[in-house]
Amino acid sequence: MRKVRASIIGFGSVGQGVAEVLLKKDDELKSLGIDIDVVAISDSRGSEVNTEGIDLKAAIERKRESGTVAVEDLTGEYVIRNVDHDVVIETTPTDIETGGTGLVNMLAAFENSRDVVTSNKGPLTLKYQELMQAAEESDCKFRFEATVGGAMPIINLIKSTLAGNEIKSIEGILNGTCNYILTRMMEEKASYEQMLAESKELGIAETDPTYDVEGIDAACKLVILANSIFGQNATFQDVEVTGITKITPESLALAYDDGYVIKLIGEVKKDRLRVSPRLVPASHPLAVGGTLNVASVHTDLAGTVTVTGRGAGSIETASAILSDVVSIYRE
Amino acid sequence: MRKVRASIIGFGSVGQGVAEVLLKKDDELKSLGIDIDVVAISDSRGSEVNTEGIDLKAAIERKRESGTVAVEDLTGEYVIRNVDHDVVIETTPTDIETGGTGLVNMLAAFENSRDVVTSNKGPLTLKYQELMQAAEESDCKFRFEATVGGAMPIINLIKSTLAGNEIKSIEGILNGTCNYILTRMMEEKASYEQMLAESKELGIAETDPTYDVEGIDAACKLVILANSIFGQNATFQDVEVTGITKITPESLALAYDDGYVIKLIGEVKKDRLRVSPRLVPASHPLAVGGTLNVASVHTDLAGTVTVTGRGAGSIETASAILSDVVSIYRE
Repeated sequence: MRKVRASIIGFGSVGQGVAEVLLKKDDELKSLGIDIDVVAISDSRGSEVNTEGIDLKAAIERKRESGTVAVEDLTGEYVIRNVDHDVVIETTPTDIETGGTGLVNMLAAFENSRDVVTSNKGPLTLKYQELMQAAEESDCKFRFEATVGGAMPIINLIKSTLAGNEIKSIEGILNGTCNYILTRMMEEKASYEQMLAESKELGIAETDPTYDVEGIDAACKLVILANSIFGQNATFQDVEVTGITKITPESLALAYDDGYVIKLIGEVKKDRLRVSPRLVPASHPLAVGGTLNVASVHTDLAGTVTVTGRGAGSIETASAILSDVVSIYRE
Repeated sequence: MRKVRASIIGFGSVGQGVAEVLLKKDDELKSLGIDIDVVAISDSRGSEVNTEGIDLKAAIERKRESGTVAVEDLTGEYVIRNVDHDVVIETTPTDIETGGTGLVNMLAAFENSRDVVTSNKGPLTLKYQELMQAAEESDCKFRFEATVGGAMPIINLIKSTLAGNEIKSIEGILNGTCNYILTRMMEEKASYEQMLAESKELGIAETDPTYDVEGIDAACKLVILANSIFGQNATFQDVEVTGITKITPESLALAYDDGYVIKLIGEVKKDRLRVSPRLVPASHPLAVGGTLNVASVHTDLAGTVTVTGRGAGSIETASAILSDVVSIYRE
């Protein structure tokens, strides 16, 4: 049995999802040879530290009641540097302008020889090579399945089950909010504005939806795929991006009459990174509806492999984080 | 660099596909830390053995010209028992009545402490627990991704990228020949007999198509999933099986008018193994056409993850075998 001490840095919906999943999956993890103790949890207001292992149920309840997990005035970075543990589960919010505290936290983790599992796209979009180098120099593991497509497996799918294949290109729907809006516009023959409003009411779109509907979120995920799968050194600037805000219900209806749907497709290959609305045959594996994410991986040996799954949700994202933790420590 | 000595036992289309892929992927394998030498190849007429490493290109050419790879009168089993090597790549034809030479070969491999990677469904359908026990007692690895869905990743997908999830059920299209016939019957409003004939002409259906069209092949794959994913001890007898031979173009047309397609769906959950034609909404992720295979995995954390890929083909099947080899020996 491998004893693993973890911190959860960032205790919003994903961080709490991780705590819930660790609580629920204690037996399954032990059957895989992994005994996890969470020794620190941090949010933006402070931290709880307990080297004997934090009571996760109590921590989640305190967060929900008081708005913070903090019982001590310690930052996530302080915890990463000073509390002895093996893996930092980094779930602070994505900041694609500067990388935010996530970047600081990941670099601090590697400096202190701690592995990192993250759902935070910002640092990976901005500083992929620097982070990989820091991880390698410290002989640390760095896993980020949760950054692309939530519970839809893609990075580990390619690295493990498609090992040996040359990956020619990847294309897919990498943003569930856009997929929901486009699906509903077609179903209801309604305008972008109407269906954006519906998405906000349902909590599918954020109050400021720019990041999703302008294609920025999908572009960040493409950058992570380009760097991790294709060995590129891309950043957000390298992606041609067009969002969905100018699509009309009339264009969706015309496409449908010819057997097509319009989807916001991200595409990555050696010489091109692009996010744009594209026509997809209605019977094509990429033509999935609702908030689903989907990716087709084009390979030399296996042909095309397509995977579909839930791209968001706290438990779904925590599931991807869990699979990364298992991949590092299973016996 | 890990030096791996392999045998290829069975040198039909899959075995030759493995040899082709090993030739083509020598550099990629070395970059993953694996240096493979094939020290023996056997077909039903004999073997070639070369402890320095066989010239795979010459072996493939000889097989194609003379119909056999044999240069010595040695059986696959003899080679497995007597030639020093690490992994047996077992690609003899599936025999679901007795397990055939495949069963003998796998047990011989474990007795001699050799790992096994296989595409042969027969032994796994008949003697799963016995084989697993033999592998465990000899501390050998046993991998069989290629037995279910060819290049469509499913077993390794669940065991690695969905690790930690409880698998509630799996349903999917596990036979490309049936999918092709049903897809074409709908497209052409043609009878089962007509489209079976077309499939035979195209080499998609075998001369005796019973194994595919009666649902037997899909049932074998379900048994392997039931045993490997759900820890059952099922055999072919435990599957309720209905094939596609009685489906009419009229029923397909009626379904289509209501927005459905008819697919031969295999379903495995704790208390039920079933292969039967079922109605699937035309926009559902399982509604893929042509010869594609597809599987939806229903989980507690990740929700439903669906994967689509090519279920057959020598290079596609060899790709699955390659990923298994990599999973055992990569550094």
